[in-house]
This record gives sequence, C-alpha cells and structure tokens, in this order.
Amino acid sequence: MENDFEELRKRMISTAKEKIKLNYESEEYALIQAINAYNEAVKSQNLFYERLTEWYGLYFPEINVSSPKALASLVLILNSDREIGREAIESAIGDASKAESIEKKLKDSIGRRMGDEERNVVIEYAKLLLEISDSIDKLELYISAASQRLLPNTAYLTDDKIAAELLSKAGSMERLATFPASTVQLLGAEKALFKHIKFGSKPPKYGVIFKLPEVTNARKDIKGRIARLYATKITMALKADYYTKNFIAEKLKVDIDNGIKRITSSPVKEKPTRQYDSNRQGHGHGRKFDGKKRFNRRR
Amino acid sequence: MENDFEELRKRMISTAKEKIKLNYESEEYALIQAINAYNEAVKSQNLFYERLTEWYGLYFPEINVSSPKALASLVLILNSDREIGREAIESAIGDASKAESIEKKLKDSIGRRMGDEERNVVIEYAKLLLEISDSIDKLELYISAASQRLLPNTAYLTDDKIAAELLSKAGSMERLATFPASTVQLLGAEKALFKHIKFGSKPPKYGVIFKLPEVTNARKDIKGRIARLYATKITMALKADYYTKNFIAEKLKVDIDNGIKRITSSPVKEKPTRQYDSNRQGHGHGRKFDGKKRFNRRR
Repeated sequence: MENDFEELRKRMISTAKEKIKLNYESEEYALIQAINAYNEAVKSQNLFYERLTEWYGLYFPEINVSSPKALASLVLILNSDREIGREAIESAIGDASKAESIEKKLKDSIGRRMGDEERNVVIEYAKLLLEISDSIDKLELYISAASQRLLPNTAYLTDDKIAAELLSKAGSMERLATFPASTVQLLGAEKALFKHIKFGSKPPKYGVIFKLPEVTNARKDIKGRIARLYATKITMALKADYYTKNFIAEKLKVDIDNGIKRITSSPVKEKPTRQYDSNRQGHGHGRKFDGKKRFNRRR
Repeated sequence: MENDFEELRKRMISTAKEKIKLNYESEEYALIQAINAYNEAVKSQNLFYERLTEWYGLYFPEINVSSPKALASLVLILNSDREIGREAIESAIGDASKAESIEKKLKDSIGRRMGDEERNVVIEYAKLLLEISDSIDKLELYISAASQRLLPNTAYLTDDKIAAELLSKAGSMERLATFPASTVQLLGAEKALFKHIKFGSKPPKYGVIFKLPEVTNARKDIKGRIARLYATKITMALKADYYTKNFIAEKLKVDIDNGIKRITSSPVKEKPTRQYDSNRQGHGHGRKFDGKKRFNRRR
C-alpha cells in the first residue's frame, strides 16, 4: 500500500514535469527574452555612449562622432601605443573628412592631459561600450532569424523586431493570435490607454506599430487610419503564423499598399478649431476634462 | 593695423584656451565621470542579471545563484564543449554544496532543450554580463585610487565611493569645500528635500551619507543625529582636503566614535503618538498637510 502510493506520487510528478516541459517547447519564449534583452542593452548602450562622450570630452572636447561604436573605436585608437595616423582614425569612424578634422584638432586640443590610471580606466570603459555594441548586433541577428521562423507573415509585413515586440507584449503566440485588430493596434500603448480611461486624456492611436516607417512618416491627419489598416492585416498575418502556417503575407502587403494609396489620396482634413461645448459639462460623456478638474482647487 | 588686430585675436584665443585647460587640470572631473559611470554600470549589470536569470530559466529553471558573475560563469560552463563536472561548476560559483545540487538537478531538469542558435546567443549574453562585471571592478579600483588622492580625509571617514559621490553631487572640489554641514548632510537627497519644501512631506535626514553602515544600522530614533554628526566632521574633512591638505581624519574619526557613543547611550525616545493638533490648521506653519489638502476635492 505504502509502495503503491509512492509509485503513484512519482508518476504524477513526472507527468507534471513533462507538461511543463511541453509548455516551454516552443522557441517563442526565447524570442521574448531576446527582444527584451535587446531593448535593455540598447538603453544601456546609449547611457554608456553619453557617459563616454562626456568623460572623453575632458581630454579632447573637440571630438564629435555620431555613433557609440565610432566613439569607442576612436578612443581606443587615440590611446593605443601605435602612431596615430589619419588612416587609423578613418578606419575607426569610417568618415574621411571627419578623420582629417579630428587629426588637425588633436594637435592643439584644449583638453586635459591624461594620467596613466585615467587612461587605463577610460580604455576599459570604451572596450565595454564596444562589447555591448557587438552583443546588440548578435542579439539582433538571433531576433531576425527567430522572428522569421515563428512569425514569417508578421515579420514580412512589419519587420523582425516589431514582430518580436508584439509577441513580447502579448506574452505568447497563442494569446497574440487571438487578439482583435484593435488590441494589436494598441499593444505597447497600455500606459497611454489607461491614462485615457482613467483621466480622459486623448486615446492613443498606436503602440508598437508606431515604429513602422509608413505610420511614422504619414500625414498627421491619416496616421491613425494607416495604423488601423496595418493592425487589421497584422491580425490576419498573426493568425496565419499561429494556426495555418501558410504564407499569405505577400497578398496582405498588396492590400496594405492599396489601402495606403486610398487613404493618402483622401483630402486633408482640417483640424477642427476647439470650441467650448457647454452641453458637455454635467453629462456622463464629458470625461475629457475630468482629470484636470479633479485636481483644480476651487477658489 | 590689420595685422596687429589678427595678432591680438590669436593671442586672446590662446589665452582663453589656456584658461580652460587650467580649469580642467584637476583629476576631480575624471573622478566625477568615473563614479557616475560606475553607478550606471551597476544598474545595467543588475538589469542584465535579472534578464539572464529569466532567460536561462527557460532551459534550467532549477538554477539558483546569487551573483551576476556566478550566474554568467555557470551559464558559460554549462554550455561549453567540455564535460561538465562538479569541479567546473564549483569553480564557477564558488560554493561546493550548491555545485553538488546543481549537478544533480542538471540530470532531469524540466527546462526546454536548446537550439544551437539559442545557445550561441545566450552564451554571448552571458559573456556581456561577465564583461560588465569586470568593468565595474576596474572602475571601482580607479575610484578608490583617485578618491584617496583627492579626498584622503573624506575617504578615510566614509569610504572611497561615498567620497566620490559627494564630489559628483557638488560638481567640483571647490564647491564641495564651501558647503556647510547641513548641505553636506543632504547631498543626494535633493528630490526629497524639494518635495518637503513644495508639498510639506517629511524633511529628509540624509542623502549620500545614508550609505554609511553607521547611519544605516543605527537605531531609528538616532539615525538623524548620527547623520548630522558625520556631516559636521565630513565638512571639516572636505575643507582639509581642498585647502590645507593636512591629514586630520584620524582625529576626526575619534571625535565621531565618541559622538556615536554619546548619542547611542541616550535613552530610546518613544515616538510620540500622533495627535490631531487643531491649532495647526489656519496657521502659516502647518505646511505638513498642505500637499494633501491641495489635491483633495472638497465635497
């Protein structure tokens, strides 16, 4: 009897373990981790880049480069034991005319002379910035590959990172595939959405899909409509990615292009001038000014 | 005439450049950059550590280590080509009994099997975490050396990083040396201070110097007095560091120790029970509840 019980317990545990294992069988969870790691790494990179710009500015305030990698490489070259020639500078920042001006300015920089200890720690910090840039590139490669494996239709319509971010916001492929277009449109705009619901600020028009160049660069009065168009088609793409696994993205892309043409050719809407609507106050609908009112002191 | 003017202009520019150069001659600005870089790097490290814990948890949820370095090393060892033995695990995390339990759990982990691409990108990410840990160690070494050069008295009384942080909050040695004890006490608590001034919340008792173990671990009712004692002596130390360059810290430390003894031996103050003070309302002094009142709606 005792033994039977023990046997049963063991089998139940191993069944539970198998179930958990099955749940994490899909690569989607790794993709979610990767896109989050990517976003965090990009933020850190920008922070370190700003810091190195400020720090190295003590020694060479005339420096002026436009990317973390270029700055880090330049700092490493300027502080290496080798002779500093224009070619070396150019190879670091990839810009011939800038390399020339940097070489000139090097000769009578007004920056502070560097102690050995300072030099070592700055070099170390520049190396860290390079490392983080490299890691970001590698994360990006993985995200691209995994997005195209898991979300081929969605990645085709948007891009690899946007597809991964939609997945990350939803939490799983299954949940994402069941979302209606309106939810997909606002994924990533949760903060603005709840601000709208709670305080009556303007409702958001787009979340993650704002990063699409077609939405970002659209005329202001049609941005929302284009975002909606995309959301509708992305919703279809997501269902294809999760359920049927057919590749329908080319057809959807044609639909989107036609839709954008139609929307863009519509006449420019004038923004209505704001009028004070006296009917609004006192009605349940007039939530728009609620938020402000609540915090105003009566006099 | 034209030439004279040109000559004058050149000399003025070079004088100005010399002046700027002189202003940045001191190492203090490098130390300020280093302590900020350190604080930012520690934040990023914690973020990456949390991410790797979550990410690697997909493959090996039973993992449980307590430091970024240990986790990163363990991930690298578990995914190397070598045979995974207990010694290797122990060398990574430096804990024999934990290494044993990890080795056991490895055999029937319920984690997901890893694809090659996933493995490569996770290894890459673990390496980044190791890099950032190493950089933090090197920044710390530099900060210690520079603090002891520039602020020997203050670093002796507090510690190297706290001294550097005080400097960073003040912006320069000169400004820091002119601050009164009350300002030194609250350096780093600017946010709480302005909240107090604007909304009448409780005034802060300490800023950066809260990190001193003597303050952190003090009895609650005397924390503020110990912070004040430290601030007074630190102010003296700062003046010695900037003006006289004498080493007076040992004497100051004795003063602090005596002061702490005196304060600690004072009887425990009971926290007064809150009473509603009807006189308070309507007076100018009663700022304490102002903040709340302002946002309360009258009914």
